[in-house]
Amino acid sequence: MKTKILLKESEMPTHWYNVIADMPNPPTPPLGPDGNPVGPDALAAIFPEELIKQEMSGERWIKIPDEVREVLRLWRPSPLYRAHRLEKMLNTPAKIFYKNESVSPAGSHKPNTAVAQAYYNKQAGIKKLTTETGAGQWGCSIALAGQMFGLDVEVFMVNISYGQKPYRRTMMRTWGAQVHASPTNLTESGRSILAKDPNSEGSLGIAISEAVEIAASRPDTNYALGSVLNHVLLHQTIIGEEAKKQLAMVGEYPDMIFAPCGGGSNFGGIAFPFFADKAAGKKIDLVAVEPTSCPTLTKGTYAYDFGDAIGLTPLMKMYTLGHDFMPPGIHAGGLRYHGDSALISQLYNEGLLSAIAVPQTETFEAGILFAKSEGIVPAPESTHAIAATIREARRCAETGEAKTLLFNLSGHGHFDMTSYDRYFAGELEDYDYPEEAIKESLAHLPKVG
Amino acid sequence: MKTKILLKESEMPTHWYNVIADMPNPPTPPLGPDGNPVGPDALAAIFPEELIKQEMSGERWIKIPDEVREVLRLWRPSPLYRAHRLEKMLNTPAKIFYKNESVSPAGSHKPNTAVAQAYYNKQAGIKKLTTETGAGQWGCSIALAGQMFGLDVEVFMVNISYGQKPYRRTMMRTWGAQVHASPTNLTESGRSILAKDPNSEGSLGIAISEAVEIAASRPDTNYALGSVLNHVLLHQTIIGEEAKKQLAMVGEYPDMIFAPCGGGSNFGGIAFPFFADKAAGKKIDLVAVEPTSCPTLTKGTYAYDFGDAIGLTPLMKMYTLGHDFMPPGIHAGGLRYHGDSALISQLYNEGLLSAIAVPQTETFEAGILFAKSEGIVPAPESTHAIAATIREARRCAETGEAKTLLFNLSGHGHFDMTSYDRYFAGELEDYDYPEEAIKESLAHLPKVG
Repeated sequence: MKTKILLKESEMPTHWYNVIADMPNPPTPPLGPDGNPVGPDALAAIFPEELIKQEMSGERWIKIPDEVREVLRLWRPSPLYRAHRLEKMLNTPAKIFYKNESVSPAGSHKPNTAVAQAYYNKQAGIKKLTTETGAGQWGCSIALAGQMFGLDVEVFMVNISYGQKPYRRTMMRTWGAQVHASPTNLTESGRSILAKDPNSEGSLGIAISEAVEIAASRPDTNYALGSVLNHVLLHQTIIGEEAKKQLAMVGEYPDMIFAPCGGGSNFGGIAFPFFADKAAGKKIDLVAVEPTSCPTLTKGTYAYDFGDAIGLTPLMKMYTLGHDFMPPGIHAGGLRYHGDSALISQLYNEGLLSAIAVPQTETFEAGILFAKSEGIVPAPESTHAIAATIREARRCAETGEAKTLLFNLSGHGHFDMTSYDRYFAGELEDYDYPEEAIKESLAHLPKVG
Repeated sequence: MKTKILLKESEMPTHWYNVIADMPNPPTPPLGPDGNPVGPDALAAIFPEELIKQEMSGERWIKIPDEVREVLRLWRPSPLYRAHRLEKMLNTPAKIFYKNESVSPAGSHKPNTAVAQAYYNKQAGIKKLTTETGAGQWGCSIALAGQMFGLDVEVFMVNISYGQKPYRRTMMRTWGAQVHASPTNLTESGRSILAKDPNSEGSLGIAISEAVEIAASRPDTNYALGSVLNHVLLHQTIIGEEAKKQLAMVGEYPDMIFAPCGGGSNFGGIAFPFFADKAAGKKIDLVAVEPTSCPTLTKGTYAYDFGDAIGLTPLMKMYTLGHDFMPPGIHAGGLRYHGDSALISQLYNEGLLSAIAVPQTETFEAGILFAKSEGIVPAPESTHAIAATIREARRCAETGEAKTLLFNLSGHGHFDMTSYDRYFAGELEDYDYPEEAIKESLAHLPKVG
């Protein structure tokens, strides 16, 4: 029985899928400080024209440039796996499939959009990209992509991850990037945070503020975001498109899809191409999995809020814990984000997507079970999807249901071994739902209009 | 133009290739302390019968058990890459191909034999395996393989690597193995080394002594070796067999093959299946690449010597720097071995294989050039093959020759980023050829008979 379902390079998707074309309602617009919708011009200081077009587009299919596919084929199409050994270990009648996005040189799904963004910026004559990174997967991805197209890259890495994941810094450097621990004193945003807390652990929100501030102030420099925005999720839909083809090759279609959800590119990437079927009447459950310590969809509020911690970005209507919510220092750094993609938030609000939250130790238990059965040691972000899949597979073992489950193995854990080490040492905590902190940060939601 | 040349799971080789069948002379036998050839019985204390049979076999093809192929297909067949971007960066007319063995869950080619060894030991009723590891690639591989077949695993990790590569320890632990920094005070061998030098950096030779000592003293425990022995090289020939098929798919045949060479399983694995053609008259240059700091083939002596540092193993006729030679603490831990495979040594002595030595900084330069062009950050061991390939590709750029070059990308460098860090900091040394140390250790070669 086959373990890996492979596509040929010639079968790599030629177009990205734009979920906006199949949404029941038009997407909520980003708003400026005046409460009016933000036009393309407001974004032109930090993004190239082609990406702004994609951000606003309602076209169902958008062509992937040949130059982008040329780089993606260094690791794409990525393999789809049938998790025979995990199924056996769980003694479940469920069929478990996973899309293995850990095969990229940066070790996660993030280069799918990094390569596209670097390409469009290069075409627009940009010399340098700034960005933020949490666990370092996005920073590595943009460092790799910048190198592939000859762009300089400057990365603001969340302070707690900078300490926890020193090897990621060196990897970014190997691809030629410059890396700072954020907050830094290189920006106004960083200095304002450090003034309040000189030992700040940082957050994705703060790092975004720093990277945006620098990009906005230099004409030859643009900003690249690793998640949240429409064009980022668009570039990730290659994952779900491939998975759909691969499942069809073995005559399968998933009943449920699980993916980690921080800013949403991981989940949107695998789930959106299946949402197209759901919109057409197909029964499928698309489940975003988040940490209980940063429960944006499951415990947040659907409201207009800033994308960053300081308030430099336009307001987006999204599930949010408040832009100044500071998530606990959990080991899935990529999921420590106060908000969520506006597209995912809207569809979730309309009841078309599901979400669950999983505590930290359960995710590591799941990751180790996965490593012991399937071999691959997963990233802490990915273990969220694994934990949710295992819950469902165990449920199936009780009920006897032979459901087909698909999850996104978004990355490997090779740079997260200190986190595993701490798990083994019994040092990982399951943070309680930070009710008071969320209440306080939600009180700071911006007034619209 | 294709980047990856892929085989289907159904095209995975069904047999290993045994080079002994095509050698012009029978292999030199291992000798006991009395100078007489060692029979199968002498090995039975630490190896299962099937592996001893393979060690002695002259059959050309040996069937790969279905249970072994079932585990190998978690990552095999591995992709063959055409290095379009590296070629372009070097502006060379040479065609460069590489076999990507970094795709295994342990990140190197080592699981190819670890899985086979775990299987045969399990079949023989063994409960536990002991082993040594340098950079940790072998230790991870046997931890993974042990887990796949339900065997306990105890790993003696060379002290310098134990410090340099802490993440590998955690990875072994994730797969359920126990790991010690060698030399330990758990064995006579370890204690004798520590008595002389309490801060010993350790070596593969010492770690082997420790693992063998424990396996020999317990009936339910066997020993697993990651390189050097005939059966280990046999299991790695799946690499070269696949590569040959993959090159044929694009109408190519290599003029030269490069692989790192420590104990020889990396080089033997990719080169031996092509040696079969060479023995039949085909022109091909098979090049073992070693570090200048541990130049076994290029500066050693062809003589009977122990495989370990203490003198517990049978004597093998091989190129050696002397069993008590202590190589400098270079970052390619897997290549810090005083000896070499008897099969490779014999063929090299007969002029049928080539060897070159490359200094440490050149290998890191090559590794970074590879990461910047092809994306993948290579293991320090693998950078030896890359450096040699780049030398040849640059030579081709001067002469205009359009040679076809193949190298073995034996592993990724995700657990070696501290080494890259030290390279960037200018802290890596190119050790002079350690002439005096080698002269001294060669003076201790055992007398035979």
